[in-house]
Amino acid sequence: MNPSARANPRPAADLERGRERRSIPKTPSQEDAVRFVALGGLEEVGRNMMFFEYKNEIVIIDIGLQFPEEDTPGIDFIIPNTTYLESKKENIKAVIITHGHYDHIGAVPYLMARLGNPTIYTTALTKEMLVKRQEEFTNAPRLDIQVVKNRDKIRLSENFEADFFSVTHTIPDTTGVILKTPAGNLVHFAEMKFDYDKEGKPQGLEEFEKIGKLGIHALFIDSTNAEVPGFSVSERVVEKNLEDIVKKAQGRVIIGIFSSLLTRIAEVLKIAEKYDRRVAVSGLSMKTNIQIAQNLGYIKTKKGAIITLEEIHKYKDEKLLILSTGAQGEPNASLMRIASGEHRQIEIKPGDTVVFSSSVIPGNERSIQGLKDNLTRQGAKVYTSKLVDIHSTGHAPQEELKVIMKLIKPRFVIPIHGYYFMRAANAELAHEVKIPKQNVFLIDNGQVIHIAKEGISILEETVPAFYVMVDGLGVGDVGEVVMRDRRVLAQEGMVVVIATLDRRTGRFLKNPDIISRGFIYLRENKDLVEDVRKRIRGIIGRIPRYQELEPDYIKTLIRDQIGQFLYNKTRRRPMILPVVIEV
Amino acid sequence: MNPSARANPRPAADLERGRERRSIPKTPSQEDAVRFVALGGLEEVGRNMMFFEYKNEIVIIDIGLQFPEEDTPGIDFIIPNTTYLESKKENIKAVIITHGHYDHIGAVPYLMARLGNPTIYTTALTKEMLVKRQEEFTNAPRLDIQVVKNRDKIRLSENFEADFFSVTHTIPDTTGVILKTPAGNLVHFAEMKFDYDKEGKPQGLEEFEKIGKLGIHALFIDSTNAEVPGFSVSERVVEKNLEDIVKKAQGRVIIGIFSSLLTRIAEVLKIAEKYDRRVAVSGLSMKTNIQIAQNLGYIKTKKGAIITLEEIHKYKDEKLLILSTGAQGEPNASLMRIASGEHRQIEIKPGDTVVFSSSVIPGNERSIQGLKDNLTRQGAKVYTSKLVDIHSTGHAPQEELKVIMKLIKPRFVIPIHGYYFMRAANAELAHEVKIPKQNVFLIDNGQVIHIAKEGISILEETVPAFYVMVDGLGVGDVGEVVMRDRRVLAQEGMVVVIATLDRRTGRFLKNPDIISRGFIYLRENKDLVEDVRKRIRGIIGRIPRYQELEPDYIKTLIRDQIGQFLYNKTRRRPMILPVVIEV
Repeated sequence: MNPSARANPRPAADLERGRERRSIPKTPSQEDAVRFVALGGLEEVGRNMMFFEYKNEIVIIDIGLQFPEEDTPGIDFIIPNTTYLESKKENIKAVIITHGHYDHIGAVPYLMARLGNPTIYTTALTKEMLVKRQEEFTNAPRLDIQVVKNRDKIRLSENFEADFFSVTHTIPDTTGVILKTPAGNLVHFAEMKFDYDKEGKPQGLEEFEKIGKLGIHALFIDSTNAEVPGFSVSERVVEKNLEDIVKKAQGRVIIGIFSSLLTRIAEVLKIAEKYDRRVAVSGLSMKTNIQIAQNLGYIKTKKGAIITLEEIHKYKDEKLLILSTGAQGEPNASLMRIASGEHRQIEIKPGDTVVFSSSVIPGNERSIQGLKDNLTRQGAKVYTSKLVDIHSTGHAPQEELKVIMKLIKPRFVIPIHGYYFMRAANAELAHEVKIPKQNVFLIDNGQVIHIAKEGISILEETVPAFYVMVDGLGVGDVGEVVMRDRRVLAQEGMVVVIATLDRRTGRFLKNPDIISRGFIYLRENKDLVEDVRKRIRGIIGRIPRYQELEPDYIKTLIRDQIGQFLYNKTRRRPMILPVVIEV
Repeated sequence: MNPSARANPRPAADLERGRERRSIPKTPSQEDAVRFVALGGLEEVGRNMMFFEYKNEIVIIDIGLQFPEEDTPGIDFIIPNTTYLESKKENIKAVIITHGHYDHIGAVPYLMARLGNPTIYTTALTKEMLVKRQEEFTNAPRLDIQVVKNRDKIRLSENFEADFFSVTHTIPDTTGVILKTPAGNLVHFAEMKFDYDKEGKPQGLEEFEKIGKLGIHALFIDSTNAEVPGFSVSERVVEKNLEDIVKKAQGRVIIGIFSSLLTRIAEVLKIAEKYDRRVAVSGLSMKTNIQIAQNLGYIKTKKGAIITLEEIHKYKDEKLLILSTGAQGEPNASLMRIASGEHRQIEIKPGDTVVFSSSVIPGNERSIQGLKDNLTRQGAKVYTSKLVDIHSTGHAPQEELKVIMKLIKPRFVIPIHGYYFMRAANAELAHEVKIPKQNVFLIDNGQVIHIAKEGISILEETVPAFYVMVDGLGVGDVGEVVMRDRRVLAQEGMVVVIATLDRRTGRFLKNPDIISRGFIYLRENKDLVEDVRKRIRGIIGRIPRYQELEPDYIKTLIRDQIGQFLYNKTRRRPMILPVVIEV
């Protein structure tokens, strides 16, 4: 078993452990019970997709993707497994999309056709982002989207009604939803944080208080920052710090930021205007998002405030601010191209100020280090949120989570979004605000929970939730075997051994061919190659003449003996691929 | 070019940029000048090795290794390149080893023979660690080690004298050195931090003041934390927090820690004794290190305080504390085996407390997340330094660095250890304490600096400093070609295409063989395989009969056309390995 796979146990193993932990009532009441399943987002940060099911009605919330991990090399994305939903697609009454981040909308182009292209309910900005992205996929169906606003109440189906309410996140138009169901009121707001005013007072808490007064049966609550003590850094503080940096910068200011952090991008545009800097945008996704936000009025700029990259040479350095994608060190994104001197219009020079206004996604630390190094070497002054608060999370930390739970007063809490240890930390917070332990449920992707008026229980039934990988044009055709091979190839390389034999005599028709990649540089190790050839001849030679040639048997001999020989010589275990050609 | 390689530019590229940045005096005075070269440690955190050269005398400081990175898959270690030193090995008068961490001692077994096994000057604890490690390498020479103590003054050669002085780090017996040379007094203390007493007062600063009074020409100063504001967390605070956790734990306490953090391991043993817990040690390297530290009196325990893992069942949970290696999520280390249920004596159970008393090395975030997840799932309460100060760095942050520079008052500062951006931050700190910009030198691995009484300059000359990779038994035999292949194989996999042809007719003797790994699961894609075969037959078929078979030409055709075909079909670019067998 692969060690990194072990460190991130897959659903099957988790479920087993889950069963050990909790006794499961065998005969839950089926009357008026709503089933809830998370197809992703519970053993990871990303790939968010969950659904509620009542009799023959299904409501889905979010259809996100996850970016590849160390143990899934070479793939593009990981998307949720929709096997269960596909078999019941005529029951899907609605898809609610909470906001426009890729971990909530990213799998829409891959999955909507399979789900029968049901109606999507979402806010105006998210709609535009969905439509724009869908256009990039030529075979994906045209989406049927109904735009919702804050305080809209919409009947989704006979048994589900949705009350939408706005929440603060790092992208405008993020929505929470109160699902009114036969089992009670269920609250789900994908992700949110407190909004603070200039005095640092949290805003909009009365909204949660109002929700609490409706009587909430179960709350599904984000756990991404449940481990982080305290309150979030106010976006007002971030604004002020960014403003200070722009104010004192003598040359150009380049701000690296996620293209989806539209709330902050809007702030940066205001700051640029205040300090009389024109803004050029580098990175296609950011350009698109800004355009969409402008069309909807979320970003307001004076005429001429945003210029093209081709125009930047017309302005003095101290009159320029560049917004760039790639603050995570992504290989082909704008900031990396700027740093490596491969950007067509922008080259770093002494006097430049580069600001990383983003968090570091775990796994990207090394590339960001390399990026910072490269920028500093070329003379830029680099600011990161390690030095000064120039980024604030979109996810409520401990104290905010507790306030939310206190105001909403749910009977049951189901921590969602994040690794088990994050959700376990969230469960602790629920206990701290006096929600009894037995009313908090830590479930896994694919586990089915049964929400009845009388109470909630975890069923023994599960739904497939294993990874579906997207690699090039293939969706789901790269599985565990291919991943395992890639991991082995990356670690040890491979050796192809070709024995060309006479079908009748079993004799070699030519010297064995040896090809290797990623193992050792063969041209510089001719003795080793000769030794391997000699051994292969020995292996075949020892097979008695009267014995018929059995290619599989010969292959096994070669694999074992050449593998062992190379290990003894080098202490490495390349993948050995024996080929026996009989002519 | 590989994008991640681009993010971590290799010395060659760096040197070019270095040359652009700084004008270099063409004819530095050679009289009484000492040359300084870092062979590692300057574009990385790790692989520390530097040397001073005066006429025909060379003094080396540290011979460390670096752990592999994302862009060097499958290798064991990266060690310094000693080509230059090997050609002058008779000049090597001394090797000074500052402390026992692997990034300072790790390459000793690989390199000492190549360097002519010169005398090592180091402290008692470091000596024992060096000797112990050397024993693991059967062909490595017996080391010639002279033990030094605080305040020892040792003449290393005609022109080099070394005054040793103790510094505080996370391992006892760390030494700094004042090298008295014809060019002046040079100060080098590999790594250090302030030592604070219980009241939070820094200790031992008078030592630096004394050094400052000697008149210091150049200071070589650690930059690892030059980006981190403020002072370090006092080890007394860490002790107190660890004690609080142990005090309130109801069941077993498992502390994950680096085996080389011997100072803290000693503290933990004291805490265990205070709360009447026996200590079991899991992890060979930790056992060895504790044994060595006990022998030298750095760790003092009562009889019976340390028990074996086989004995733990004899004690109640609340009477046990387990010290474990693997807090970085290393695949085969103790903590990972405990978490995955593969440890022979220890299995996690509810009530266990697991403490990560270590920093997170960039690149290990994902495995540590997986590890935490696994431990929490099994019922352990997990503490990390994100939640509470249970780790303190061994590297001085900004304010400590500034105090050191103020006290030592060097004329010149050469920031060492760490990426360029860390060293650039250190240079800023030097400027803040009024060391003129032109007296601070940011150099790269392999660059030669010329230290004369009159001043310091960077020479145009460079010394080879590129990576030497250790993979299994091979040292340096895995080069850039093999690394590049491993990266491609990991991302896209490979396809071997074997065409067996009749030498005379150029006709196929059999159907082309296709083998693939890490690309697509061929058994489930038989149509694709058939298409590839058809295309190969087409490629060969189109070659006119009268034309002689040219295997290289055929291979190129197959590589290009099959590569393009597979890309069109899948949008993936596996490595294509064509083999033409003529019989």
